[in-house]
Amino acid sequence: MHISGNCYKIRLTASLLGIKLNLIEYNIHKSETRTQRFTTHVNANGRVPTLQIDSSTFIPESNAACVYLASSPDARRKLIPDDRLEHAQMLQWMFFEQYSHEPNVAVLRNWRAFVGMENLTELQRLQVEGKEKAGKEALDVMERHLGGNGGEERKWFVGDDVSVADVALFAYTHCADTAGFDLAGWPRVKAWVERVSEVDGFTALDD
Amino acid sequence: MHISGNCYKIRLTASLLGIKLNLIEYNIHKSETRTQRFTTHVNANGRVPTLQIDSSTFIPESNAACVYLASSPDARRKLIPDDRLEHAQMLQWMFFEQYSHEPNVAVLRNWRAFVGMENLTELQRLQVEGKEKAGKEALDVMERHLGGNGGEERKWFVGDDVSVADVALFAYTHCADTAGFDLAGWPRVKAWVERVSEVDGFTALDD
Repeated sequence: MHISGNCYKIRLTASLLGIKLNLIEYNIHKSETRTQRFTTHVNANGRVPTLQIDSSTFIPESNAACVYLASSPDARRKLIPDDRLEHAQMLQWMFFEQYSHEPNVAVLRNWRAFVGMENLTELQRLQVEGKEKAGKEALDVMERHLGGNGGEERKWFVGDDVSVADVALFAYTHCADTAGFDLAGWPRVKAWVERVSEVDGFTALDD
Repeated sequence: MHISGNCYKIRLTASLLGIKLNLIEYNIHKSETRTQRFTTHVNANGRVPTLQIDSSTFIPESNAACVYLASSPDARRKLIPDDRLEHAQMLQWMFFEQYSHEPNVAVLRNWRAFVGMENLTELQRLQVEGKEKAGKEALDVMERHLGGNGGEERKWFVGDDVSVADVALFAYTHCADTAGFDLAGWPRVKAWVERVSEVDGFTALDD
């Protein structure tokens, strides 16, 4: 069963591009990404996902792996804008995702849906309220952006078409209800989630 | 007085490129980045830094702003690798910086050097130990990478020359002692810090 949103970003990017990936699963609950072999040869940071390019080359960090795939010269669809400003804006939303969204929405999802709130440590329990507030703020920022910040409404996060910025944000937003955020409170975000899931080549988290 | 490492990244990138920036200072302790005007027109996420391009265009997220500057067609130095794999590796280290390094090293620096450990909330106090451990792990990852993970030692994080990945990691690593991390324990990182500070066009945090 696929559960990691960070791994899903790479599978979704590949699916939109028509690229076939071979998946190797690691059980993080058995520390399979913390072995000497893994940290020496795969990812020194001991995390998944990491995109393997050849026998000794790996790209850790989900968003960097998505950019690598999308910059393939054979890509059948443009998921990275050519324009210099739009390219930077794409990265802006991907950094926002890793700094302001994932540590709140994804962590709460893990706690609520997998660890169980009754099993949290005292420190984790104390962090719930702050992460709920910060997760709401991240969704508010997305809602305002899609609303055009007073200007024209936007269909996509950057420019006029789906990009890897949408993929990165989609991974933990589409399942935000399992983190405790009902997207009915963010109607533009909800409509954008539906828009992304209708893109040609889309694959779902649990596909 | 300049204290934000995230703002410093942009100033250092501009300095290495020979680009002159006009700085506008906001007092975050007076919530000057949380006003309606700021969140509507400058950065919906209510944070600095944000790079202003023209009267109505801003790029939030320090690492995205650095990439924008370095992708200038007039750049006097190449801070972004052309090679597709090295480009993704540059982004990999920049995402690592925002996810695994900054939330630990920069936050501890803020608490130790500016807030004062005696002024921390109970929740912050409980987080200190975890952030010390995660900050050490981030520096360990950097040390192993510079050591070549068993292969050849590296001078720079990506490829054979300084890139914006080095700039992003430098911002909060060079002042890690003020966060409580003595770089004597990470000799390759310490040597790399000296290497970056000798690059032509370098500017210091408090310049």
